[in-house]
Amino acid sequence: MNRRITLAARPAGEPEESNFALVEDEVPKAEAGQVLVRALWVSVDPYQRGRMSQARSYAKSLELGDVITAQAVGQVVESQDPRFEPGDLVVGQLGWQEYAIARAGSLRKLPPGLEPPSLALHVLGATGLTAYFGLFDVGKPLPGETVVVSGAAGAVGQIVGQLAMLAGCRAVGIAGGQEKVAELREVYGYDAAVDYKTDDLRDALKSACPDGVDVYFDNVGGDVSAAVYPRLNVGARIAVCGQVSQYNLARPAPTFHPALLIVFRARMEGFLVTDYAHRYDEGIARLARWVANGDLRWHEHVTDGLENAPRAFIGMFHGENRGKTLVKVAERT
Amino acid sequence: MNRRITLAARPAGEPEESNFALVEDEVPKAEAGQVLVRALWVSVDPYQRGRMSQARSYAKSLELGDVITAQAVGQVVESQDPRFEPGDLVVGQLGWQEYAIARAGSLRKLPPGLEPPSLALHVLGATGLTAYFGLFDVGKPLPGETVVVSGAAGAVGQIVGQLAMLAGCRAVGIAGGQEKVAELREVYGYDAAVDYKTDDLRDALKSACPDGVDVYFDNVGGDVSAAVYPRLNVGARIAVCGQVSQYNLARPAPTFHPALLIVFRARMEGFLVTDYAHRYDEGIARLARWVANGDLRWHEHVTDGLENAPRAFIGMFHGENRGKTLVKVAERT
Repeated sequence: MNRRITLAARPAGEPEESNFALVEDEVPKAEAGQVLVRALWVSVDPYQRGRMSQARSYAKSLELGDVITAQAVGQVVESQDPRFEPGDLVVGQLGWQEYAIARAGSLRKLPPGLEPPSLALHVLGATGLTAYFGLFDVGKPLPGETVVVSGAAGAVGQIVGQLAMLAGCRAVGIAGGQEKVAELREVYGYDAAVDYKTDDLRDALKSACPDGVDVYFDNVGGDVSAAVYPRLNVGARIAVCGQVSQYNLARPAPTFHPALLIVFRARMEGFLVTDYAHRYDEGIARLARWVANGDLRWHEHVTDGLENAPRAFIGMFHGENRGKTLVKVAERT
Repeated sequence: MNRRITLAARPAGEPEESNFALVEDEVPKAEAGQVLVRALWVSVDPYQRGRMSQARSYAKSLELGDVITAQAVGQVVESQDPRFEPGDLVVGQLGWQEYAIARAGSLRKLPPGLEPPSLALHVLGATGLTAYFGLFDVGKPLPGETVVVSGAAGAVGQIVGQLAMLAGCRAVGIAGGQEKVAELREVYGYDAAVDYKTDDLRDALKSACPDGVDVYFDNVGGDVSAAVYPRLNVGARIAVCGQVSQYNLARPAPTFHPALLIVFRARMEGFLVTDYAHRYDEGIARLARWVANGDLRWHEHVTDGLENAPRAFIGMFHGENRGKTLVKVAERT
């Protein structure tokens, strides 16, 4: 049997377990050009909240009953395409389900020996590439500049600060809770880290950024970002990666004054990693080198069992997860 | 005697005549390196509202009793510097006053034969350069794209649309009132013009921009901009030149959702013309050529008499003025 997590009802505000259904059905069969994959890890990401809503966005909304959109790392069970054979480790848009049928052309084989293979879902996958292109192509940091990252203990944020330091910048992270802040400083080596839950955010940012803020890599928006904006330097760049604080609001109020961009002659730019698909090889190659030589660290927040994916997703919006949120679905064979 | 308009009280909200004082004193004398200039036209611009406030901005606030900051075109009366002699026409930061002492190095001589000399205060001066650098360097329009301009009948706006058409773009102007909209279409040749006072702005923009909006040159912000944002195309650029709708609000509420920039992978960037000072010669040369061959038109809204500058300024915020607001202070001798 196959098990899938589907959209049972659109969340109104915060997502709840009742928005999801666990559905059992037959394991499907691969047809010509298709591959049947058994998921090992499925990814849990804030953008999935957008798919559950009918608000206009950059991608189509899920319909009720659809499997939740997600990347997954899995193992080929059956292949009707010469490019894959049973046992191959692959990554692709497989959704929150134990078995998935995929077009062979939509799957990517993992590099041999990648350990753990789940890296293909974060540092050496979508979130690492998001950090890489968002910071370097949108933020364009120069050595000596100060880079502030919100959601710094999240999947993307944990990488951004480290990339900023590799580029010769001062990295300042904003996260919620002393444990996360300590990890940013001690494990990832951020020059400074600020706890938005307990610190006076404006004062703390003032001390953490004595030379102002040149690049703000924004994952969260809302009040956290409002505290960063006044510290921008002339010529600052704001890379808008996410606005997680806004995703569960029914009618989010505007949060930004465009006039600030005149005061600071600053640039605010949104991006999607998928627009850089033609450069993924470049990004992966660089990230892989930094992982291999120990320059790039990460944390995985792993929940066991597909049935617990909704809970992991909900927890992410409550700041319960550190690093990349993953659900482990099965053991490798 | 000299007459000057000074800041009598900081405006709370909309500026009023009582915020200004008309002060009479002796005509000053030029010392070594200085020039005494008699103003012919003084400039009236929205940015002056910012100088009257104590809110943090890109330039120092005026103190009470200071002459209102303004560019002016004037004629040299007395020169203690070899670069100028009586009768020369000059432009500089002379303020709202009939006579001003200026450092010789801060003045620019008008090109011989410039008619009317007031052009140096708009098309061939600050507002023309603002349109030129803001559109081309920040907006970066490509031929075939749609450029929307708010405040399109204002000093900067009237030029932006014409420059957009010179660059092969579709130009769409937003202005208040049928007279302005007719001028945009008939005098400036805008492809479409929308009256935000009487049209349903969202519907009108939909018809006016059948291919969406690639560049939004924003002078006003607020509700007008809120109607433009949903029409942006992927990859759109918003050049934030001004936010006039917000300047008289005591505590302006935020007006923008940064998440929109993700949806459209769009860029919003603020700029100040003064950051392009090293390229003014380039801008002026191009603008002058377009003026000379009739490609660039303009409208001057001229009020007579220095004492009427506050009224012209106040009227500008009520949409009473078309084109560049100027006060004529004296006749050329």
